[in-house]
Amino acid sequence: MMHQRIIACQGDDFRLKADKAVWIWYPGDFEIWLHNKVLLRRSERGTSMPPFWRLDNFYPSIKFRKRVNLYEPELIRIYAEGDCTLILDNKYIYDLSDGVRIPAGEHELVITAASMQNVPCIYVEGSSIYSDQTWEASHNNHTWVEAGCWDFSDPTVLPSSFKLETVEIFPEAVEGIGKSRLVDFGKETFGYVKLTGVGGRGTISLYYGESREEALAGAEAETFDKVLCDGNGDEELVLSVSRAFRFINIVPDSEVTIKDVSAYYEFLPIECRGGFRCSDELVNRIWDTSLYTLHLNTREFFLDGIKRDRWVWSGDAYQSYLMNYYTFFDEAVNRRTMIALRGKDPVESHINYIMDYSFYWFIGFYDYYMYTGDLDFIRKNYARMLSLMEFCLNRRNSEGMMEGYPEDWVFVDWAEMDKRGEVSTEQILFRRSLEVMGLFAGLLGDTNNAERFNRLADDLEKKITCTFWDEEQGGFIQSRFEGRINRHLTKYPNIFSVLFGYTDKDRTERIKRDVLQNPNVQKITTPYMRFYELSALCGLGEQEFILKEMKDYWGGMLAQGATTFWEEYDPQVTGAARYAMYGRPFGKSLCHAWGASPVYLLGRYFLGVKPLEPGYSTYVIEPNLGGLDWIEGTVPIPGGRVNVFASSTEIRVAATKGTGCLIIRSSTPPKAAPSCKVIEVEPGLYNVTTGTTPVTVTL
Amino acid sequence: MMHQRIIACQGDDFRLKADKAVWIWYPGDFEIWLHNKVLLRRSERGTSMPPFWRLDNFYPSIKFRKRVNLYEPELIRIYAEGDCTLILDNKYIYDLSDGVRIPAGEHELVITAASMQNVPCIYVEGSSIYSDQTWEASHNNHTWVEAGCWDFSDPTVLPSSFKLETVEIFPEAVEGIGKSRLVDFGKETFGYVKLTGVGGRGTISLYYGESREEALAGAEAETFDKVLCDGNGDEELVLSVSRAFRFINIVPDSEVTIKDVSAYYEFLPIECRGGFRCSDELVNRIWDTSLYTLHLNTREFFLDGIKRDRWVWSGDAYQSYLMNYYTFFDEAVNRRTMIALRGKDPVESHINYIMDYSFYWFIGFYDYYMYTGDLDFIRKNYARMLSLMEFCLNRRNSEGMMEGYPEDWVFVDWAEMDKRGEVSTEQILFRRSLEVMGLFAGLLGDTNNAERFNRLADDLEKKITCTFWDEEQGGFIQSRFEGRINRHLTKYPNIFSVLFGYTDKDRTERIKRDVLQNPNVQKITTPYMRFYELSALCGLGEQEFILKEMKDYWGGMLAQGATTFWEEYDPQVTGAARYAMYGRPFGKSLCHAWGASPVYLLGRYFLGVKPLEPGYSTYVIEPNLGGLDWIEGTVPIPGGRVNVFASSTEIRVAATKGTGCLIIRSSTPPKAAPSCKVIEVEPGLYNVTTGTTPVTVTL
Repeated sequence: MMHQRIIACQGDDFRLKADKAVWIWYPGDFEIWLHNKVLLRRSERGTSMPPFWRLDNFYPSIKFRKRVNLYEPELIRIYAEGDCTLILDNKYIYDLSDGVRIPAGEHELVITAASMQNVPCIYVEGSSIYSDQTWEASHNNHTWVEAGCWDFSDPTVLPSSFKLETVEIFPEAVEGIGKSRLVDFGKETFGYVKLTGVGGRGTISLYYGESREEALAGAEAETFDKVLCDGNGDEELVLSVSRAFRFINIVPDSEVTIKDVSAYYEFLPIECRGGFRCSDELVNRIWDTSLYTLHLNTREFFLDGIKRDRWVWSGDAYQSYLMNYYTFFDEAVNRRTMIALRGKDPVESHINYIMDYSFYWFIGFYDYYMYTGDLDFIRKNYARMLSLMEFCLNRRNSEGMMEGYPEDWVFVDWAEMDKRGEVSTEQILFRRSLEVMGLFAGLLGDTNNAERFNRLADDLEKKITCTFWDEEQGGFIQSRFEGRINRHLTKYPNIFSVLFGYTDKDRTERIKRDVLQNPNVQKITTPYMRFYELSALCGLGEQEFILKEMKDYWGGMLAQGATTFWEEYDPQVTGAARYAMYGRPFGKSLCHAWGASPVYLLGRYFLGVKPLEPGYSTYVIEPNLGGLDWIEGTVPIPGGRVNVFASSTEIRVAATKGTGCLIIRSSTPPKAAPSCKVIEVEPGLYNVTTGTTPVTVTL
Repeated sequence: MMHQRIIACQGDDFRLKADKAVWIWYPGDFEIWLHNKVLLRRSERGTSMPPFWRLDNFYPSIKFRKRVNLYEPELIRIYAEGDCTLILDNKYIYDLSDGVRIPAGEHELVITAASMQNVPCIYVEGSSIYSDQTWEASHNNHTWVEAGCWDFSDPTVLPSSFKLETVEIFPEAVEGIGKSRLVDFGKETFGYVKLTGVGGRGTISLYYGESREEALAGAEAETFDKVLCDGNGDEELVLSVSRAFRFINIVPDSEVTIKDVSAYYEFLPIECRGGFRCSDELVNRIWDTSLYTLHLNTREFFLDGIKRDRWVWSGDAYQSYLMNYYTFFDEAVNRRTMIALRGKDPVESHINYIMDYSFYWFIGFYDYYMYTGDLDFIRKNYARMLSLMEFCLNRRNSEGMMEGYPEDWVFVDWAEMDKRGEVSTEQILFRRSLEVMGLFAGLLGDTNNAERFNRLADDLEKKITCTFWDEEQGGFIQSRFEGRINRHLTKYPNIFSVLFGYTDKDRTERIKRDVLQNPNVQKITTPYMRFYELSALCGLGEQEFILKEMKDYWGGMLAQGATTFWEEYDPQVTGAARYAMYGRPFGKSLCHAWGASPVYLLGRYFLGVKPLEPGYSTYVIEPNLGGLDWIEGTVPIPGGRVNVFASSTEIRVAATKGTGCLIIRSSTPPKAAPSCKVIEVEPGLYNVTTGTTPVTVTL
């Protein structure tokens, strides 16, 4: 099987192997601090661009606690980021420099850590006492919670020094244009430029371009740097900020000379545990380019795009979570993105100011739970989920629906639509969020809230159907404003209703025919909303149509020379105009996370693998060729994988864990080895239960 | 008149003269940041001691806004702590390095500032556009509030570099004890030790002592420093932390030599605008020593004591606010202490964890308003007052009274008493807090809350009287726990009832006789609670008794060689045992803010000056000799002062502002110049209305 490696490193979920000392901190604080660092890196044409929304900060003073029972005395060493103090059984220990001997018996260790510069963190090293997530932490509010940690296991490396990895890369082509030099790295990349053999005194201007045109556009390039130098011809300069580029136009002052240009490619070292190949090479290239696009945007957190914002947006990130489950299956980046997006209490606005982005945040937890089975993470974040949900509930209008406050951004999509009053799409996302909260409340034993959220979801369901279902048009309509219905039929509410399984068979069919496949209904043009549209259509069995769309749209970008997928693509636009957006000639991001959706669509709807129960303890495999001769691939599951091959004559499944339900639609009964039972569920629909023994079914 | 100067500098209230550019920030954030810095400085025997309670942090990203209308174009320069960006009329300005020319006409300037290291601050300099408190700030929560500022007017000095002032001081005596050297600065002081002419390689240990005994106690001294040196005999070492001391025992390693020792005395440069002299030199010395004690504790914020905690405690600070009104009248330190104590939302515990300390915080605002008339400050903090009050209201028990949660510290005083259940003192302080909130809600137009808080205060008043007034014993009793009354008669609830004027004439008399002057009632031993006890007795006309107490208690400390007043004093204890507290031989603070109460008692109850209406627009002058031949003094009022002289034959009043009501008790009618009308209010009680013309009344 193909197993596309990016860089082997962390691999499996850290939760499963934290059996030695790691740096610990107050949960969320390191993520919030790092998030600030990432967000505040944005600069545009030399000017800093902090995000619009509130940035939170870490608590400068934290207590960590652990109760131990030692059979024999033990020497421990304590490391800290900031100042720290050990209180052993309520007594201050005044000198920690040579370690502390903890006597045999039962003890309570409380370690205070305080720092104004960085997140207070500690690292405790002993043979049986060591810092990990079994320690408790308190920000001195009389409440203890499990400590937060990643996999920082070296006591000499402070968490605040965390950086992604780098490796040196070299241009594929260099072109002299007058005094300046245009270097081309052959594909979109991200890193710190390195100039060697720099001589002379003056300024070097570096204009970055995702396209050749952008690099040559001077101060119209979205990002540029000016470097002062005074070298003897031997100088080496490495820029302190990393940029997104394929091309760089390097323009030195007349007296300045530069010998060589390279860059340190900066990346998150994660392994791609998913894979996909098929009989169509273009589709394979689309998968590979999607993966590369996704990986470039999978960093400290999921970014929207690597050139411009480099911010973390809940709606964009939500799609990246799903793509991640079919590629890296790196739970850690999902977790830290969800933590960072939420920030701290009190809630004063929607996530990223956007109403729908609050809802995607809730729904992201549901998917996280289904794909990973990690209820522990839900439990740790439940209080923050509750407070965001209370914030939402407090903003309902007198009809019990969500309506944008003047300061709210009701986004849905970049498209012409009426966003005033009660927008049906928002109510559907809200209903889903309530259901998610009802589920988690129940799982976590918060019975009253479980009952309450489920009731609220049910009430809302009735209101939505009664208010927005338009029997005549065969779909949910756009909105109601000041009591007046806007019967504009848009795809958005209908897509989500289908995706969430909110409509019965008849209505689903009507939506499919009268809305989703209705050429008179306003088209969706952003890859962002196409993600949901294509998912919904795949769910309705339209893989053949989707494959054609994919080859047209993503194949179209490749045909235009794309090395990563774009924020937006319109086949009608040609030349440099392709790069314009937001009223700026190079405003468009050419490496945008939401452009990578084929990795999700191909994994979930062509290989057809998805969890049935949390953490893939049981799952579905429902391959769909979509017109291809054969497809083959790997879908990662927690601590394992599912390999699938499918052609018109054969299906093979090999999994390392769990119980699969292979679903086959066939006009003739499929054949399998005697050990595999093929059950005919209904005429033409067969199920085969699979386990860790490879299964081959012939059709 | 005496006008004891400490260091002339800031003087009058900054609010009144902010007519030029100053650094601005998000209100409260600089105070919170500085507060953390101060609190985290505490170390004990080489170990850091962060406070028990939650420390908040600043917002890393802030927007500042100003709308202007220019007659002609204007060049502005923008300075920032952190990164900053100008958005002029919704358009980013990309280059700020040479200043920005703002065209004539109406404009909106929005400046973003972001920093993870320090509080984001900006400074804008132009001829008509300049940063001050008329700018608005937002932490990106869709809400704009007035920017915060102090008087930082130099654009080249960043707010984060703020430090108190220093001046070099020298020991009065040096005593060689073996290899070590005991230096004596002659009185309690605070500063950074400087060692000059240091030679040799090794460690120098510095053991600080507020007493000689402490300095000589080695590692039992509450604070010490170890300095590594490797000097050629010419080395100069200045310690990076400032300490409280009178004595320092300097113990160098055998190879190390030191030529000279001095220190940089560190202090808040404020002028003492109040003064007091009388016919008794001991009382004058008590006043002077109180002032010095108060000044040493009046720093970035009001500290409890300068040696040990160096923390900011709401109950301690509350008394300092009041002392401040009769000495420095430095509103700024009151304001920043109140801001820092409150911190940020959400409220998760009482201030300093202590229930009563939340109430003192509210009551401190009332006094601030009465003494300064600054309703603006109340308005700016009203939201935070509301959220703390909601927190309190949510913690009432089923009887509607405040009862300590397991994590609450019900303090009242260091004394034996039952603090379980409903403690009457807490209810009285709570009632007062509700009244304060009712007053402010009304003044700020929050009518519903005004009505609500006043009603809650009335309800509570009825419950308090009905539950705790003990007609038989003639006072309020201690508490009720699980429905059972504890009839223990303590002074606390009775003191506060008298101070707040909560009892009628009959009950007040009974409290005075049966509680406050009843030798069988448990004595108050801390200067902390004595502050209120002596105030209450002064209010009941017991100045003669108080003067005797003062001379005994504070005079007793002076007789023991005190150069500042102590945290606790028991005349029975002698020798080194005087310095022990909290189970540690030198645990007692010998320079404790609450020890300075004579400056308050003498100003408020002997000179007898207090505001009648907010900001001293009208005020009372009711001199009381308390048995002294004469008293003379100055009480500062906003932007002015009131001078008072009183003897048994003459009273003179000279004020620079406002209208005074001179109250005279005399068996014969006082005489004054014909322009002054002496009104007999009741037999033996006379009023004279005073203004800015000096008034002399002969008796």
